[in-house]
Amino acid sequence: MATLKKIPLVLMGCGGVGRQLLQNIVSCRSLHANLGVHLRVVGVSDSKSLVVASDVFTKEFNDNLLSEICRLKADHSSLSMLISGFGGECQVFLDSDLRGKLLEIASLLGISTGLAFVDCSASSETVEILTQAVDLGCCIVLANKKPLTSTMEDYDKLVSRPRRIRYESTVGAGLPVIASLNRILSSGDPVHRIVGSLSGTLGYVMSEVEDGKPLSQVVKAAKSLGYTEPDPRDDLSGMDVARKALILARLLGMRINIDSIKIESLYPEEMGPNIMSVEDFLSTGLPLLDNDIGERVRKASLNGNVLRYVCVIEGSRCTVGIQELPKNSPLGRLRGSDNVLEIYSRCYSEQPLVIQGAGAGNDTTAAGVLADILDIQDLFP
Amino acid sequence: MATLKKIPLVLMGCGGVGRQLLQNIVSCRSLHANLGVHLRVVGVSDSKSLVVASDVFTKEFNDNLLSEICRLKADHSSLSMLISGFGGECQVFLDSDLRGKLLEIASLLGISTGLAFVDCSASSETVEILTQAVDLGCCIVLANKKPLTSTMEDYDKLVSRPRRIRYESTVGAGLPVIASLNRILSSGDPVHRIVGSLSGTLGYVMSEVEDGKPLSQVVKAAKSLGYTEPDPRDDLSGMDVARKALILARLLGMRINIDSIKIESLYPEEMGPNIMSVEDFLSTGLPLLDNDIGERVRKASLNGNVLRYVCVIEGSRCTVGIQELPKNSPLGRLRGSDNVLEIYSRCYSEQPLVIQGAGAGNDTTAAGVLADILDIQDLFP
Repeated sequence: MATLKKIPLVLMGCGGVGRQLLQNIVSCRSLHANLGVHLRVVGVSDSKSLVVASDVFTKEFNDNLLSEICRLKADHSSLSMLISGFGGECQVFLDSDLRGKLLEIASLLGISTGLAFVDCSASSETVEILTQAVDLGCCIVLANKKPLTSTMEDYDKLVSRPRRIRYESTVGAGLPVIASLNRILSSGDPVHRIVGSLSGTLGYVMSEVEDGKPLSQVVKAAKSLGYTEPDPRDDLSGMDVARKALILARLLGMRINIDSIKIESLYPEEMGPNIMSVEDFLSTGLPLLDNDIGERVRKASLNGNVLRYVCVIEGSRCTVGIQELPKNSPLGRLRGSDNVLEIYSRCYSEQPLVIQGAGAGNDTTAAGVLADILDIQDLFP
Repeated sequence: MATLKKIPLVLMGCGGVGRQLLQNIVSCRSLHANLGVHLRVVGVSDSKSLVVASDVFTKEFNDNLLSEICRLKADHSSLSMLISGFGGECQVFLDSDLRGKLLEIASLLGISTGLAFVDCSASSETVEILTQAVDLGCCIVLANKKPLTSTMEDYDKLVSRPRRIRYESTVGAGLPVIASLNRILSSGDPVHRIVGSLSGTLGYVMSEVEDGKPLSQVVKAAKSLGYTEPDPRDDLSGMDVARKALILARLLGMRINIDSIKIESLYPEEMGPNIMSVEDFLSTGLPLLDNDIGERVRKASLNGNVLRYVCVIEGSRCTVGIQELPKNSPLGRLRGSDNVLEIYSRCYSEQPLVIQGAGAGNDTTAAGVLADILDIQDLFP
């Protein structure tokens, strides 16, 4: 058997996606060996601590240690608990040492091995380390949307070596959205319009209100089904969709920031999180919105249309909000929590290229991250 | 500006797809320069002749020569006509010298530069050269289905270095089918079922007969619209769909040959090309089939279903033929000539991952080939 190509990586973020990724890395050992690669985890960090292999050149976390990290973090324990059990194999760095140590690993392994920084956090703090890691020759794989939706300056730095960054799971979880757009763009087929339903939560909400249910009931049901964030306004504000739209728009070459995107929130400012508690919002705020949405649904229906919460990227325009769309279009037919993306280009001009499927969940998000890591394997020696 | 990464390539096949590819290579020069790459065409062959740059190490076809090749081949002229106009820049090899010269280029450039052999022919003859080119360290990019649907031995050889082969345009033209499946598989998400409508022609035919039109009229209309091969039986036999199904099945790990696939032909053997002329088939053969198909359409409709000509890959089974499918599924809703693929895996278990769009045409097929070439750029020095 030929030697396996080793891909060293540091994972940032041990939430649901990060833990699922570590589990998948362990369970895919023999699959990846058949593909000729071995993923060598040399560091894992959460917001407060960093665990690093005792010698990043020659050592790695073994599968027991990776499983132990998953177990600890699922219990909301700190990574520093690892000191006791696996003392010889790894070192733990805390707080102020964390950033310096990450950059030290980047400078040790970046240029020589193409070390991959894998950001599965939801933090806006990682962008600083990531941009510096790029300069140190590292590859970047992101499930975290924040680094790509920061300033244009940060974005330009992150994508300055376009082959060394992958971020499939930032849009539509594991759905092959970014990979497909990159293929279309590199073939010289200009993309002139993207319309997408990129929030499973809002997709579910819009298809339920289409059936005549009041918005307030639908949102409460979605919350109790676990479809929404703890505060449903995090979904209803449209900000998460706007971040995804910004990532797509920038991929198409638009040089804009998040505040240049017109975002329609499903609730008015006076029902915002700083003014109203979640309970008040659900019990007294939301019901005040039922009539308006219900009326819009009925009006759309008279035109043979339905309402969808979509992002539209076209020309120099990027908007996020409710649109009236033909009932008989891929987006109009959408039911439940699937994501859908319609891509219009020269090759797909009259009928779009459509990509549809589950666009959320730790499982599919982590799968997208793992596919990204495998996809950059040719960059490693 | 940094030096561009040079990707040397030899194109086999100058039909519509091959010519479109050469035109796209020329028109994408500045786009690709921005991506840091330069496609260096060092040879072009059709079935009878091969044109090679005068020195494959240092020279390449300039854009005038590439355009001239497109012009000649669009006029059905021979590549040997090039001797006169571009004598100094290229050499022409004919017939018996062709194979030897291709292998000579492969051995000169394969290991040192990762030369890409791009097969846009529809020939079953290229597989021998391609398998040898693999041994010589070359990369392989295919729009041609035949090499991948030959024996398992040939297939194993072609994919023996999986990072060095791409074949997106063999299934669904430029639709990101193979790339997406590769992503899913490499992430350890097992694909357990694929259902696809992979023939634009048969997709059109089935959605028209669904509207109550007789099969014979629909096929004649499709032929006059240019949707079918000159002999529509080439489409109606299902053989083209079977080749695509075989490529997908082998990608999923099934070790089968084309003759292990159950293929339903839309016409009986006694109306085959060796027995009946195209004219007789259209005027007297086809109308005899109208009632049977019409009856099947009506029966399906009573169950709320529609008929689609699909491939189904599941477990160890791979079949190609008419299936009754729910009207309200992505395949059931399909209209016109779009291709659709539904992929079921662990991550996409209840609702499939769906990829839909134009699955034929020189434009989108050539775009898929070009994206494949860009996708292997990291393998080149």
